Amino acid sequence: LDHPRITIIGAGNLATRLAVALYEHGFCISRIYSRTADSAKTLAAMVDTDYTTEIPHIGTDSDIYIFSVKDDALPGILKQLPPLKGLLVHTGGSIPMDIFAPYSDSYGVFYPLQTFSKTRKIDFAETPVCIEASGEKELKQLAALAESISRHVLPVNSDRRKYIHLAAVFTCNFVNRMYDIGAEILQQQQLPFDLLQPLIDETAAKIHSLSPFEAQTGPAVRYDRSVTEKQSALLNDESLKTIYELMSKNIHQRHLSNR
Amino acid sequence: LDHPRITIIGAGNLATRLAVALYEHGFCISRIYSRTADSAKTLAAMVDTDYTTEIPHIGTDSDIYIFSVKDDALPGILKQLPPLKGLLVHTGGSIPMDIFAPYSDSYGVFYPLQTFSKTRKIDFAETPVCIEASGEKELKQLAALAESISRHVLPVNSDRRKYIHLAAVFTCNFVNRMYDIGAEILQQQQLPFDLLQPLIDETAAKIHSLSPFEAQTGPAVRYDRSVTEKQSALLNDESLKTIYELMSKNIHQRHLSNR
Repeated sequence: LDHPRITIIGAGNLATRLAVALYEHGFCISRIYSRTADSAKTLAAMVDTDYTTEIPHIGTDSDIYIFSVKDDALPGILKQLPPLKGLLVHTGGSIPMDIFAPYSDSYGVFYPLQTFSKTRKIDFAETPVCIEASGEKELKQLAALAESISRHVLPVNSDRRKYIHLAAVFTCNFVNRMYDIGAEILQQQQLPFDLLQPLIDETAAKIHSLSPFEAQTGPAVRYDRSVTEKQSALLNDESLKTIYELMSKNIHQRHLSNR
Repeated sequence: LDHPRITIIGAGNLATRLAVALYEHGFCISRIYSRTADSAKTLAAMVDTDYTTEIPHIGTDSDIYIFSVKDDALPGILKQLPPLKGLLVHTGGSIPMDIFAPYSDSYGVFYPLQTFSKTRKIDFAETPVCIEASGEKELKQLAALAESISRHVLPVNSDRRKYIHLAAVFTCNFVNRMYDIGAEILQQQQLPFDLLQPLIDETAAKIHSLSPFEAQTGPAVRYDRSVTEKQSALLNDESLKTIYELMSKNIHQRHLSNR
């Protein structure tokens, strides 16, 4: 299986970046499935293959089937699968591996710990990939696949993987929403978002040399109530005001109990 | 005033990094004040000057006095000031400039938009500095000071400055707490924080080319409820659970109303 044939089920951000990375590393992508014809077609063109919008038509001649769809959608897709001989793999942080058990003996998980956007290329070599498999043979097969694109491949079971995914939601998705809130606040003042870029870059850079606990700064950790009260009053949006107050209180208490 | 003499009131993170940057750019630091003798002494040694822990002893022969203390502490310090002829400046994002009005005719604000830690050097050249002053002469003096260490100096009035500070709290202080929460979650699973570093770096890097709104990923924006419900259930800490649910709902609604 030096160059396994791979079918990609899904054409979202992760599916797109993974399919392109595999394609660029010499793998043959047999087919792309997406329920949305446009997405399927676009990704298929990027990796020089066919596409389908019907699960029963995904073909049965691949060595590996990578499922990269919304967690909610996976069970329904599995029920429509034709009988497959290859390795079934999903890319979800929070889906147990044994979701495949009723459908195959040969399955696993390939979870890249990264944020993917369709239009932005990722350095897969530096992206940690958490793998898990139903048996020794499958684990070797998955490790070979993962190591062909990443320098950081680690076996992680389903229970620990879901905590890694949870940590990723806080440190990526919630962080990005914080950036977005900053952008909204500046936009209302007709100020450019660029103004925040050096601060955002330094905030991410400094935790390479300090722990996030040591790196914490700002009015909440100083318990500078004259600032936190004034800032909360500036927020008209109730949801943002609640987030502001909750985060300030949480930071204050985290540093009270540890200092 | 080619080389103004500068007194620094405060020895916290910002005071330390600013005093060192000014010293390294050839400015003479006349004296350091901190109510904590150890902090005053340490910073004074770094910038080759004397220190005091008594406001009445800060001296009266400087051209510029930079107040970099907790917002809460500033009013009490101003009340103890000896009569000063120089320019009075504070570094606070949320303190109005006219807090100085009862004490001087010559004052302003020097607000660097950055996160400072005592032990980590900052590239001041890339740090935006927001300035404001009581008159034309003072604004020129402050601009000269700011431009001697930063390439991004912009005049900002007190009203807009407090919104910039608010945006900074979301995009730096709250972001850093999100990193810290991720670190706590991984630590409980005996997993190294390093695992999150490529994700954190990419999350900050991608908003150089996409807006934070476009860059948003994760279960909340996909409204993948099977993930968000499972993840919320993993959190035992009530404060973190509330933050998780609030952020997920906020992200979902932000993208509902804009798509």
